[in-house]
Amino acid sequence: MSTPGHITSRDNPLLVKLRKLAQDPAGYRKYGLLWLEGDHLARALRARGGRAQHALVAEGAWAREPSLHDLAQWAERVSLLPDAIFKTLSTLESPAPIGFVVDVPPSQPLLPLAPTVVLDRLQDAGNVGSILRSAAALGVQQVIALKGTAALWSPKVLRAGMGAHFGLRLIEGLEPSGLSALEVPWVATSSHAPSALPDADLPWPCAWVLGHEGRGVDPALMARCAVTVRIPQPGGEESLNVAAAAAVCLYESARRRAVP
Amino acid sequence: MSTPGHITSRDNPLLVKLRKLAQDPAGYRKYGLLWLEGDHLARALRARGGRAQHALVAEGAWAREPSLHDLAQWAERVSLLPDAIFKTLSTLESPAPIGFVVDVPPSQPLLPLAPTVVLDRLQDAGNVGSILRSAAALGVQQVIALKGTAALWSPKVLRAGMGAHFGLRLIEGLEPSGLSALEVPWVATSSHAPSALPDADLPWPCAWVLGHEGRGVDPALMARCAVTVRIPQPGGEESLNVAAAAAVCLYESARRRAVP
Repeated sequence: MSTPGHITSRDNPLLVKLRKLAQDPAGYRKYGLLWLEGDHLARALRARGGRAQHALVAEGAWAREPSLHDLAQWAERVSLLPDAIFKTLSTLESPAPIGFVVDVPPSQPLLPLAPTVVLDRLQDAGNVGSILRSAAALGVQQVIALKGTAALWSPKVLRAGMGAHFGLRLIEGLEPSGLSALEVPWVATSSHAPSALPDADLPWPCAWVLGHEGRGVDPALMARCAVTVRIPQPGGEESLNVAAAAAVCLYESARRRAVP
Repeated sequence: MSTPGHITSRDNPLLVKLRKLAQDPAGYRKYGLLWLEGDHLARALRARGGRAQHALVAEGAWAREPSLHDLAQWAERVSLLPDAIFKTLSTLESPAPIGFVVDVPPSQPLLPLAPTVVLDRLQDAGNVGSILRSAAALGVQQVIALKGTAALWSPKVLRAGMGAHFGLRLIEGLEPSGLSALEVPWVATSSHAPSALPDADLPWPCAWVLGHEGRGVDPALMARCAVTVRIPQPGGEESLNVAAAAAVCLYESARRRAVP
């Protein structure tokens, strides 16, 4: 175990950068770094064999909580910070006393045959994070965010994703034309579709295409879907939130392919 | 059509109250009023036969958009405000030019036999709103928020609910003991349950019990559930966001009772 270092100035260049990362949803693209607050995301990354550059720990918690030592040592370096300075790194109401600086995963080509979710300009970070969680839990391997979608690695999406990011191949900023590399059939929901989701023939693997919260899936993409289905809504005219609809669709896909 | 009045002071007592309502999630309990920003929620309430006390409209939009006149006239009174003052009522980035003051619906007794969702101390307004939407869409009639759950009529939950509030019987602040008035069987998800959701015997009507984002359903409530089920998650150890899980459960209940 190497001896932890100390950061004593709130103007330390790393801290300045981390504060910017915490506040700018797309800041990670500029710096190539993620700031993982708390222990949950770090544990999820570690469980997947991921690495961290640097663990930052509040001095008070370091003295009080030996359990932090093991987790912190996973990083290549450990630095302790006065509690008051550590707090300046957080935008949360109850900041955790530990955080990790991690490289943004390098971009990778899309997998033509993988079970996929396509995000067509989704705006809400909570929705995007929830969809990543559902995708990882329900057997999707890859999520493609088309240009105009909320930044996948932003602090809010990371928090809402609860570690799902690290179990998925994530591709972002793709133009719709780039989707032609996908060789699995595309599927989308549409309130006008004649087939109801429970009865429709659903291909697997497939790419579930999910659309903007207000405007839905772009008509040009919808026209390229091999299958469109309607989620029956016996309650009447209301519609589902896109992350709720995504969970339903991915659940139905998983239900079909389950060994009885 | 009565002639609209004018409000010219930003210190008008109604405006002061509405600003407080916009900022305090539980402020409606104090004032007995809701402030419905924009036209969507108002149209949903009007479609259900609901009423509004007062429409407030920005003067610029009133002059430009005749379509607002019809909607505004649905309220008992209409007042026009200078655009700069109207903007002080909104916490949104792009404020809509119309809003409605509405009475908080009176509290009602719970329906013992209705299809129900029980919220056990859910904290996140976005989750609660999404669950109300799924409930209304998928055939639930009543949602009971136990004490400690996010305020159902807060501005954030209203926005996320997209009008679902007006199609449901909503009961909040109930102590868990009050649930004994429910005569339908209770159902919850548990990762340890032997039955998988797609195969389980699901009663209908039932009460789906949904738990706190971090801690899940209170063990004492879980023990009173007639049925517990596991949502199969072929992707591995990740778990679903509670609003995503709710959508899946309510979809599965709806799928079972659909006429083939």
